[in-house]
Amino acid sequence: MHIALPENHLKHIVSTDQFTDLHLLKQLFQATDRLRRMPDVERLELLRHKLLATIFYEPSTRTRLSFETAMYRMGGQVISSENADISSSTTKGETIEDTIRTLGTYADIIVLRHPEQGTAEKAAKASLIPVINAGDGAGEHPTQALLDLYTLLRHLGGSLNGKTIALVGDLLYGRTVHSLVKLLTLYENVRIILVSPPQLRMPPAYKHIGVTWEEVDNLTAVKEQVDALYVTRIQKERFQNQATYKKLQQNYVINKKTLKVLKSDGVIMHPLPRVGEIATEVDADPRAMYFEQIQNGIFVRMALLYWLLANKP
Amino acid sequence: MHIALPENHLKHIVSTDQFTDLHLLKQLFQATDRLRRMPDVERLELLRHKLLATIFYEPSTRTRLSFETAMYRMGGQVISSENADISSSTTKGETIEDTIRTLGTYADIIVLRHPEQGTAEKAAKASLIPVINAGDGAGEHPTQALLDLYTLLRHLGGSLNGKTIALVGDLLYGRTVHSLVKLLTLYENVRIILVSPPQLRMPPAYKHIGVTWEEVDNLTAVKEQVDALYVTRIQKERFQNQATYKKLQQNYVINKKTLKVLKSDGVIMHPLPRVGEIATEVDADPRAMYFEQIQNGIFVRMALLYWLLANKP
Amino acid sequence: MHIALPENHLKHIVSTDQFTDLHLLKQLFQATDRLRRMPDVERLELLRHKLLATIFYEPSTRTRLSFETAMYRMGGQVISSENADISSSTTKGETIEDTIRTLGTYADIIVLRHPEQGTAEKAAKASLIPVINAGDGAGEHPTQALLDLYTLLRHLGGSLNGKTIALVGDLLYGRTVHSLVKLLTLYENVRIILVSPPQLRMPPAYKHIGVTWEEVDNLTAVKEQVDALYVTRIQKERFQNQATYKKLQQNYVINKKTLKVLKSDGVIMHPLPRVGEIATEVDADPRAMYFEQIQNGIFVRMALLYWLLANKP
Repeated sequence: MHIALPENHLKHIVSTDQFTDLHLLKQLFQATDRLRRMPDVERLELLRHKLLATIFYEPSTRTRLSFETAMYRMGGQVISSENADISSSTTKGETIEDTIRTLGTYADIIVLRHPEQGTAEKAAKASLIPVINAGDGAGEHPTQALLDLYTLLRHLGGSLNGKTIALVGDLLYGRTVHSLVKLLTLYENVRIILVSPPQLRMPPAYKHIGVTWEEVDNLTAVKEQVDALYVTRIQKERFQNQATYKKLQQNYVINKKTLKVLKSDGVIMHPLPRVGEIATEVDADPRAMYFEQIQNGIFVRMALLYWLLANKP
Repeated sequence: MHIALPENHLKHIVSTDQFTDLHLLKQLFQATDRLRRMPDVERLELLRHKLLATIFYEPSTRTRLSFETAMYRMGGQVISSENADISSSTTKGETIEDTIRTLGTYADIIVLRHPEQGTAEKAAKASLIPVINAGDGAGEHPTQALLDLYTLLRHLGGSLNGKTIALVGDLLYGRTVHSLVKLLTLYENVRIILVSPPQLRMPPAYKHIGVTWEEVDNLTAVKEQVDALYVTRIQKERFQNQATYKKLQQNYVINKKTLKVLKSDGVIMHPLPRVGEIATEVDADPRAMYFEQIQNGIFVRMALLYWLLANKP
Repeated sequence: MHIALPENHLKHIVSTDQFTDLHLLKQLFQATDRLRRMPDVERLELLRHKLLATIFYEPSTRTRLSFETAMYRMGGQVISSENADISSSTTKGETIEDTIRTLGTYADIIVLRHPEQGTAEKAAKASLIPVINAGDGAGEHPTQALLDLYTLLRHLGGSLNGKTIALVGDLLYGRTVHSLVKLLTLYENVRIILVSPPQLRMPPAYKHIGVTWEEVDNLTAVKEQVDALYVTRIQKERFQNQATYKKLQQNYVINKKTLKVLKSDGVIMHPLPRVGEIATEVDADPRAMYFEQIQNGIFVRMALLYWLLANKP
């Protein structure tokens, strides 16, 4: 089975901005679909002999293991540092550029997580081998946005044209939704309903992109049925008054009752982990896609790893 | 070489209680023997394409590496989190059920270690893929009991009928001996001699199973020769008075002198690590089986991994 | 492609002293060259089925990943404990000998890092499988010295006879340069220029080996052009007065200006990480070999892993 490579060569994956071309997204998700359907034994031949380095300067077991799983399922191998902040040469004062150039003599590709915004780009510039940004602080986490979009398209008929998507929860600090809206607004005629407490509204910078926006204070204020509910966690650390937090959080919980806002063929999504934002009674609903999202993440990451490595000698 | 599967399908390995059927144990140890004798190259084909997730919420390098070794020796791959307590989504408040369902989209099988009793069972209930309990606090560590029994049977003629086994050390808190006695007492006519300080006697709950028990205060009080000495560590943390601990501990040390209590064809066992309970002068004794126990653990774990994975598509 | 084994069997790699035979070094570097030129696919067959245990009692991500890369690139597998000091049985009081014997039932070869001098030798004595010392405190780090020598020979025409090598920086505490001089002084007619502050001079023990030594206080005092500059880090922790440190450190920085001390066909080396000792403006100089050193380390380690494992059944 053949997996097509993108027409314009991608060397690194640093930002969601690299994917604001609908044709490129289409190619990526076609590759993802192919990988999903490919028999295990065949997939294991794709990246034989290839070595991935997962270098995490802050822990994120879920993201790290997702990339490692993608690599192993395609026959590759992995070297890993999950506490690069304390165990690496960084503690001795080495620059990220030197660390990356060193790893470039070991591995064929690097997946980097770092708490500081902009580090992924610095790393990519210094690197002789491909770098994938697995989150750099308040910056980007492009593969999360891509797997979210893939999941939406998979269940909403392959396009978002004419769809209504409600983003629920913390829209001020949530890196995930900021990256996602960049991709959603590539489609024509998308309606986005922002459901958040006034303190956690989406920053204007993300809203002025010529889409139909609506802003409401809670789920009961959503007066129409939507195609997708994308729910995020409201972190209690954002509130000084914990009583305020507790009362407020209740208004954004998805349960059997609040679910009536969703169309019968819609989807419920969440980047996980959840802490009560979606009641477990919802898990059995056929529209609940948050565990499928996780699995889709593996296939999207496979496609990206394959793209970046396939045309190397 | 063919490895027979159990007649009754095992989905998870959570408790020693799942192995209180002598026929099942016999099948398991036959599979273990086959794996031990199988040429390396052949064994490497058994679990090709399979992926194990070792998720440890408290460190136990020995147990983790034993399972990982078993997986690699059968051709599988491993993703791992050895500090899942601090690096995973658990710190953000995720339930163990959500963590397990997430991992179920990554791996084909999970080995779980957790400090809280009952977690393995919770995990197994939530999981779509097999879960093996690698210790849950004061609860169970079934693979340890199974490798102990396998080692005993291997050196005592394939059955414990009519055998005398001395359990030495901390019999009050030692999870290992509690699980082991459950299995020992499956055999007819087993005599068990409990050798411990009065403060660290085996709890009655474990003794009332219709076996011949004897309870003595120290090794010199054992008046007959035994077939097996199973020695465990007396942890100094159990004693407020460290002088008491030091004096007391001496009475349970296996050395050339105290070894006269063991038959010439008997075995000395210990779950390791030891901290002086068995003098190093004993290591060269042909009856010393504590390092072989470790190795047997790999083969028993191979058999279990194979059983749980073999009839998956 | 055939890789010759050494005439005298090596069981463990504990000390640079095992490599004070020029013939053995020649054989090792021939094997290294073969591995460097070998096609990936062929190299992957060399250590199939073999399992390496990397056991690190102090973090050193760079060294650990270098060995792991070497193993994976030859088709082997790896089990790993990168925090063996806190996560292993050592915390319960187990001896290094017991830990090593346990690991010997898991893996085919052990790479050990430990903060205490002499531990590698203890481990090797207790071990039934090969042990490689990846650094034991103030003791040895033999593979670093070997990769340094390999890099020098590769660029200085295959021998050091008649060459002048400047060692720059902290020559008092630097384990790296102490091991390296042992190997440098095996060659006839080597001139060594020691460039260090008076407080950080090389200890006499390393200098009395019948070579031509010269000792100067800083780079500008080097009056001839040298074949190699081997630069090490001056750790600020060595100085009570940080102003003294800052002023002093300036005198040992390699930049375009101080580089005039190096011949046009010479080499600049550094064990990395660097913290300003070599200005980044030097990186593009064709004589800069510090990143190649890192890569050479992988090939030298491959050769050693292969030697130690190749004649095992």
